[in-house]
Amino acid sequence: MPYEIKGLNEECGVFGIYNVPDAANVTYFGLHALQHRGQQGAGIVASDGKNLRQFRDRGLLSEVFSNPADLDFLKGNMAIGHVRYGTAGSDSLANVQPFLFHFQDGEIALCHNGNLTNAKTLKKRLEDSGSVFQSSSDTEVLIHLIRRKVRMPFIEALKASLNEVKGGFAFLLMTNDTLYAALDSNGFRPLVLGQMDNGSYVVASESCALDAVHAKLVRDVQPGELIIINKDGIKIDHYTTETQLAVCSMEYIYFARPDSIIHGVNVHTARKRMGILLAKEQPAPEEADMVIGVPNSSLSAAAGYAEAAGLPYEMGLIKNQYIARTFIQPTQALREQGVKMKLAPVRGVVSGKNIVVVDDSIVRGTTSRQIVQMLKEAGAKSVHMRIASPPFKYPHFYGIDISERKDLMAAKYSVSDMCKLIGADSLGFLSIPSLIKAVDIPDTGDAPNGGLTVAYFDGKYPTPLYDYEEQIKEPLNVEPVEEILKKQNRGE
Amino acid sequence: MPYEIKGLNEECGVFGIYNVPDAANVTYFGLHALQHRGQQGAGIVASDGKNLRQFRDRGLLSEVFSNPADLDFLKGNMAIGHVRYGTAGSDSLANVQPFLFHFQDGEIALCHNGNLTNAKTLKKRLEDSGSVFQSSSDTEVLIHLIRRKVRMPFIEALKASLNEVKGGFAFLLMTNDTLYAALDSNGFRPLVLGQMDNGSYVVASESCALDAVHAKLVRDVQPGELIIINKDGIKIDHYTTETQLAVCSMEYIYFARPDSIIHGVNVHTARKRMGILLAKEQPAPEEADMVIGVPNSSLSAAAGYAEAAGLPYEMGLIKNQYIARTFIQPTQALREQGVKMKLAPVRGVVSGKNIVVVDDSIVRGTTSRQIVQMLKEAGAKSVHMRIASPPFKYPHFYGIDISERKDLMAAKYSVSDMCKLIGADSLGFLSIPSLIKAVDIPDTGDAPNGGLTVAYFDGKYPTPLYDYEEQIKEPLNVEPVEEILKKQNRGE
Amino acid sequence: MPYEIKGLNEECGVFGIYNVPDAANVTYFGLHALQHRGQQGAGIVASDGKNLRQFRDRGLLSEVFSNPADLDFLKGNMAIGHVRYGTAGSDSLANVQPFLFHFQDGEIALCHNGNLTNAKTLKKRLEDSGSVFQSSSDTEVLIHLIRRKVRMPFIEALKASLNEVKGGFAFLLMTNDTLYAALDSNGFRPLVLGQMDNGSYVVASESCALDAVHAKLVRDVQPGELIIINKDGIKIDHYTTETQLAVCSMEYIYFARPDSIIHGVNVHTARKRMGILLAKEQPAPEEADMVIGVPNSSLSAAAGYAEAAGLPYEMGLIKNQYIARTFIQPTQALREQGVKMKLAPVRGVVSGKNIVVVDDSIVRGTTSRQIVQMLKEAGAKSVHMRIASPPFKYPHFYGIDISERKDLMAAKYSVSDMCKLIGADSLGFLSIPSLIKAVDIPDTGDAPNGGLTVAYFDGKYPTPLYDYEEQIKEPLNVEPVEEILKKQNRGE
Amino acid sequence: MPYEIKGLNEECGVFGIYNVPDAANVTYFGLHALQHRGQQGAGIVASDGKNLRQFRDRGLLSEVFSNPADLDFLKGNMAIGHVRYGTAGSDSLANVQPFLFHFQDGEIALCHNGNLTNAKTLKKRLEDSGSVFQSSSDTEVLIHLIRRKVRMPFIEALKASLNEVKGGFAFLLMTNDTLYAALDSNGFRPLVLGQMDNGSYVVASESCALDAVHAKLVRDVQPGELIIINKDGIKIDHYTTETQLAVCSMEYIYFARPDSIIHGVNVHTARKRMGILLAKEQPAPEEADMVIGVPNSSLSAAAGYAEAAGLPYEMGLIKNQYIARTFIQPTQALREQGVKMKLAPVRGVVSGKNIVVVDDSIVRGTTSRQIVQMLKEAGAKSVHMRIASPPFKYPHFYGIDISERKDLMAAKYSVSDMCKLIGADSLGFLSIPSLIKAVDIPDTGDAPNGGLTVAYFDGKYPTPLYDYEEQIKEPLNVEPVEEILKKQNRGE
Repeated sequence: MPYEIKGLNEECGVFGIYNVPDAANVTYFGLHALQHRGQQGAGIVASDGKNLRQFRDRGLLSEVFSNPADLDFLKGNMAIGHVRYGTAGSDSLANVQPFLFHFQDGEIALCHNGNLTNAKTLKKRLEDSGSVFQSSSDTEVLIHLIRRKVRMPFIEALKASLNEVKGGFAFLLMTNDTLYAALDSNGFRPLVLGQMDNGSYVVASESCALDAVHAKLVRDVQPGELIIINKDGIKIDHYTTETQLAVCSMEYIYFARPDSIIHGVNVHTARKRMGILLAKEQPAPEEADMVIGVPNSSLSAAAGYAEAAGLPYEMGLIKNQYIARTFIQPTQALREQGVKMKLAPVRGVVSGKNIVVVDDSIVRGTTSRQIVQMLKEAGAKSVHMRIASPPFKYPHFYGIDISERKDLMAAKYSVSDMCKLIGADSLGFLSIPSLIKAVDIPDTGDAPNGGLTVAYFDGKYPTPLYDYEEQIKEPLNVEPVEEILKKQNRGE
Repeated sequence: MPYEIKGLNEECGVFGIYNVPDAANVTYFGLHALQHRGQQGAGIVASDGKNLRQFRDRGLLSEVFSNPADLDFLKGNMAIGHVRYGTAGSDSLANVQPFLFHFQDGEIALCHNGNLTNAKTLKKRLEDSGSVFQSSSDTEVLIHLIRRKVRMPFIEALKASLNEVKGGFAFLLMTNDTLYAALDSNGFRPLVLGQMDNGSYVVASESCALDAVHAKLVRDVQPGELIIINKDGIKIDHYTTETQLAVCSMEYIYFARPDSIIHGVNVHTARKRMGILLAKEQPAPEEADMVIGVPNSSLSAAAGYAEAAGLPYEMGLIKNQYIARTFIQPTQALREQGVKMKLAPVRGVVSGKNIVVVDDSIVRGTTSRQIVQMLKEAGAKSVHMRIASPPFKYPHFYGIDISERKDLMAAKYSVSDMCKLIGADSLGFLSIPSLIKAVDIPDTGDAPNGGLTVAYFDGKYPTPLYDYEEQIKEPLNVEPVEEILKKQNRGE
Repeated sequence: MPYEIKGLNEECGVFGIYNVPDAANVTYFGLHALQHRGQQGAGIVASDGKNLRQFRDRGLLSEVFSNPADLDFLKGNMAIGHVRYGTAGSDSLANVQPFLFHFQDGEIALCHNGNLTNAKTLKKRLEDSGSVFQSSSDTEVLIHLIRRKVRMPFIEALKASLNEVKGGFAFLLMTNDTLYAALDSNGFRPLVLGQMDNGSYVVASESCALDAVHAKLVRDVQPGELIIINKDGIKIDHYTTETQLAVCSMEYIYFARPDSIIHGVNVHTARKRMGILLAKEQPAPEEADMVIGVPNSSLSAAAGYAEAAGLPYEMGLIKNQYIARTFIQPTQALREQGVKMKLAPVRGVVSGKNIVVVDDSIVRGTTSRQIVQMLKEAGAKSVHMRIASPPFKYPHFYGIDISERKDLMAAKYSVSDMCKLIGADSLGFLSIPSLIKAVDIPDTGDAPNGGLTVAYFDGKYPTPLYDYEEQIKEPLNVEPVEEILKKQNRGE
Repeated sequence: MPYEIKGLNEECGVFGIYNVPDAANVTYFGLHALQHRGQQGAGIVASDGKNLRQFRDRGLLSEVFSNPADLDFLKGNMAIGHVRYGTAGSDSLANVQPFLFHFQDGEIALCHNGNLTNAKTLKKRLEDSGSVFQSSSDTEVLIHLIRRKVRMPFIEALKASLNEVKGGFAFLLMTNDTLYAALDSNGFRPLVLGQMDNGSYVVASESCALDAVHAKLVRDVQPGELIIINKDGIKIDHYTTETQLAVCSMEYIYFARPDSIIHGVNVHTARKRMGILLAKEQPAPEEADMVIGVPNSSLSAAAGYAEAAGLPYEMGLIKNQYIARTFIQPTQALREQGVKMKLAPVRGVVSGKNIVVVDDSIVRGTTSRQIVQMLKEAGAKSVHMRIASPPFKYPHFYGIDISERKDLMAAKYSVSDMCKLIGADSLGFLSIPSLIKAVDIPDTGDAPNGGLTVAYFDGKYPTPLYDYEEQIKEPLNVEPVEEILKKQNRGE
């Protein structure tokens, strides 16, 4: 049972720090603030200037490091760490990061947030000339590319390799004395640079991790940058200058923590503005009594919607805080109850009322349908769904595990059909221009869409899709709405 | 590290069910919805009509029952279950409930939510004539009282014993064929009766547990009632008729889940009304830019305050969802960071703003001070604390672990001194009449305070205090405000 | 899956120490040497002179104390500890010892090795006047008896209570400043007194635990003794002088560790002598090629047998050291293999040979049959079983979990029938006189059977059987040998 | 705390099976019988004909597969498995086998027992042309070599690669439909072929694993063989014919389970003969009262010695069966006791006696010294050490973790100095010719040393040492005996 209610999972969070005592401890606290980006695995590699030491395992950070000795073992003033989302059940052991490579000429640790769109092609090319991959993760590709450039100095090889990998990525690398951070040429994935009071530098997927370790946000790492931190201080280098900001809009919509600031925009504030603009574009019906949000990621947008609509903002759904990762298999008769263990309607609030429910997005539609059903069973007179993002029609190839169109409800059905399928009384989505306006990244120059990637909504990907070009063209097999509704009525 | 941010801990949650297949499974789901009432231990006893079987251990419900075999072992159509708060570190094993007693003449299982005010006296009396207590919990007292009435039929002995124990309690008992539920004569603790579609009866601490197992709320168990459920159906009996409703107001203010309905009042709605009335009594300063709540228990009141004050309701603090119970001991240098792992300010929201923070209560004051400090460090121009309950001046003897006046900030300091101590720019509390008005239990007749216990605020306890009479009279040792502030400035 | 190959389980091991720093640590090491006496639970209670602190749980000692903090928590210079055998699957939590009772007038910790033959009667009597037992263990009876003597000083009440309980017992009690050790009036269970270099006293179930903590063996605790250790030194008191030494012979035969010394007799040496005498009474057949023992408990006797018979002593069976307590359920097809995971025949040794197998005892006969089968499958030409103890015909009521005659093969079948049932080529047992001669406790005066209990072999119990009087008279239902053999041939 | 008393650790055990239902289950049982070859990690990969599935983790087999679901997940009729010894504390996660490689053109699983003597050279060569190794294990080298032969058919590439790797190895490989087993050209490591009743083939490190799954031993895999098992049956192929049998003599002396048969010789029998020959070469002193063995690996040799010497074979040392892998850190004062938790002298046996202790080998000498000391403290009059193998003077490069001369006591000191250092009254070793005679592998033709490797004793390695050539020539820094003895006397 995943922690998140929605079936939309971030790949990872990364954290790195240079020049603090007990760097692994600080990294632990940084990763703790990034735990929402991945709960299936965690790990830290630390360097004492000579040796790199690694500890990692499956599970939450606090489970992985349940024995203090394992953290103590990671000695040194530098560290990188990682939290990871991964497919449960399979052997995810090989994929838990950071990876640590012991070469005859030195050690390199590596971790990564993102998805490479040409990983398959690169892997094939590398395998065709004899490379061996141990993990199924894209992350390993980079180190292979680097190491294949056998006569090139490390820094040159790294830059050349970063130019070969495509897609969304935020890489952290660490040798025994240097920390490297690199961001893809579109800045799809967030990555920030911070600084401690003692001057030490920190890099992290989100600024909330900087706050957690009392570091100040210096600035966002920019597309194409390669940041090098060692005893000579910090060097902001570039592996490419052909860059174009196109931040993943899903970070603002769903993934990032509300207290994070990405490219100058506080995530909560952006979400609230999405709610405000949504209220204008998709107004509440006249009979609406209140606005409620789906906890936790939609609460900001719901508050904005309520404010703009002049409707009371109520707590109509609550989230159980004690969802266990490893959960017993209920008997057949009780399985349905299991589904409702994560969310509960507040009967006293919604009963007899016309409700506007604000959610951040619709992916498969399953959760939305359950929410509508749950609220109606709790006595809601009508349920009007308002989605604080545009219809999610196209797969996400830059670091989220929705990469097949057939999984996306909006790829197959019109808004009115979606409304029928989820059983809502009305359904409305935010427009793409309003999304862009709500985020409003400052100083993006002539970057299209205000520096955001909105390809999941309009299909206009800012980069070639490489390995995924074919897939996206495959025809969709769409089951007629009436068939599905009939099945639902029969309880299937 | 406790799950809850505030140092105020409910003692327990109870759940019982009669006549469903796999009763232990259903009980599991019911307890899951009550997990907020106790996270240190959990257990279930089931009966197959002949034998009672027990499984219990320290930890969260999902940790205790991590092996499905342990739930399968609990065969039968009846079960009672318990989630428990207890002192960490000590051997809490003996106190994990339900207790199961194997007498030569039959088995009895027992669990309990509440606190007996004359437990010490009763224990002494029983010990003086040779009784032996294994646990330190009050719960055991009842079974001793019953068994000492050796020539009395069980039901008579039970009633007589219930008349001997004083304080707040909701007891569930189970023999091999009958389920019993009893509530104290003031109804201090919540306890509801529900019914499944198949007619089976359920009892639970809160109605949210009924929702979780798809049972309908029939009604609240009333003060002095003894409910008996077996193959003859349900019998609503009384062990006393000298009753007076005096529900613990802290359930509405802080403990209960927002979706629960207690004596006809939805908890979220009551909290929101507290916020609304608070806004009237303790208005926001003119310069206030926004209202924020302390997650999660204060969010309803904060929304009410914002609505009434006509101020934007913002998310200025967020709670980390991934707090581990067993947490590594950080190094000395990092301990302070550990404190901030539970809450984080949303810098982008609060920076440069005048903030009204709505919290549900102030107990020791430590958390409030940290919140003010955290918000100011995040750039808040001013922080105005508004507390959606009256000052907590008198100990709570009916089932919450605050039973010493010296731990209560409001017992020792005036509101203006409290304001200085927590470092806020202003501080205001809800009045007792407004609290009563906000809850507004219907049809309470002539019950004082609208059927609520507000003794924690005015010291007028609705019952004698028995074992605690002396304690409450002890003089308080109050350290001067200036001394404390000096220490704080010195960083002590 | 139990650790021990034979279905014969000791109840417990106890350890206590007075006046050493970190007494809980020393107790840990002492219990470690007693782990063979019980693997289902372990616990320690320590006293710092003021408070008693307890930690205990299910599992091996090293599992219970896997977190060093739990041992550190047990502060103080005095401690008692316990390892326990208990029924798996059921809620054994309540039975894990030492028990710790918090009375209004002080704390008492208690643990116990043995079995009380009148526990049921005493429990009934106590329950009839209102006592409540939490555990199903006999141990609790003593504290109830003591506490019922409400006007008697503790030491008097303890002595009077010790006179009330019957059967085999070695009790350790601890108050905040005194350690008590008491042995039953027949000395059924072993208990030794030791002394550290610094003069501190230690009591333990076996002398191997003294060795483990570098204490010297002072002497065995004698029947009827009550030893009191506190700041005034040691006092050897008696609760009765009506005593008669009757040490459980199964300690010498099977339970105790070979390096322990019980009443002046080294266990290994006694076992070896049993083997030597067995060789004389039940000589090997002429064609015998070698002698092998069943590991580990029969190896001493087997070596003695081989020596006396002038035959090579070989390793024909080996025991897997890595048997897990929690073991996966194999598929139906593989279940049989599971049985053989504990023992393996050494094919290269036994193939084509006529084997004498020396085992310490036959209880149900199941293991013996499997051993014969296993050896024959490995190519043994003939398998001659020689048992280094007399036929086990009568139940054991003094502290071992074989208390039903129907479980004992020798209670139902003649030696020649047993031989057929286990499939051996011949079968012979040691005689009772030879058993007595092999142990040969020095200076037992006129104690019958040289101070040993041999009632399991001759049915002449040295004490009344109290609660078990009826049971032992029940007629046995004996299935004809031919029927069983037929079933076995059909593979049932 | 390692399981084994001696600091000599086998690298691994392997098991593979083709064409049985629930192959992973069978593999589990096979690995269970091989657990003595490695306790730090375990894993299984199974194939259902299409996909390979993997589960592996740190810990004992029963710990790794504590959740039955993880074994159920490994569907299919083929499987390979591995138990592993590895450096504790470090991140051994990456090294837990079998490895599973997902290539674009198929999957390959791989596991290995042994040590490659040219791994470093091969790794360097591969890294120099861009290969990336994830683990520190040698095992990975083979797959890299294979995959670098990009245009060669798999079987050719495999054979060519097997010719490139040097040292001791037993490799198992598995594709989705074929199982491969390959042995080094000297047969350093044991590997046997077995067959189930249904005709299915099994390969395993030792024959005891065949017994555990009811498979018959067909024959030992021969040096240079490559065995291929798939739907076409079994094919015994060779990757080289330049072979020379040189089985690792340490398997007979110490590692293998006594019930295993290696190259036709039962291990227990070989050990017993070592003891017999040792008694002739290094006779017991006249005053000797008895012979004892160091449990468990030396018991066979000790029995042989006693038999040949005409002395009683006694149990003078016993091994605690309940040594936990994860053990609490004792306080400084108790650390010494911790050392003695594994072995205990049988005081009643050894006190006042002149003892001959038979041990299988001396590596560092630390354990021997502790044994002597322990026995003397228990009252032994004299302790004469007899070692059932020649002095271990040269490192072991073929699969055991003693690869540095400085760790070997016999590399630095004469026998008489060793005797002084361990504090024994006399010390004697088996000669190399006697070792060879004791093992006596049948039909080895003109293989030197009767088909055994005895290089650890005479320094004449049967192969070039490749990466280790330099190391073995390094001068040893030998501390004078007197200095060490002085330190010991001072308690350092």
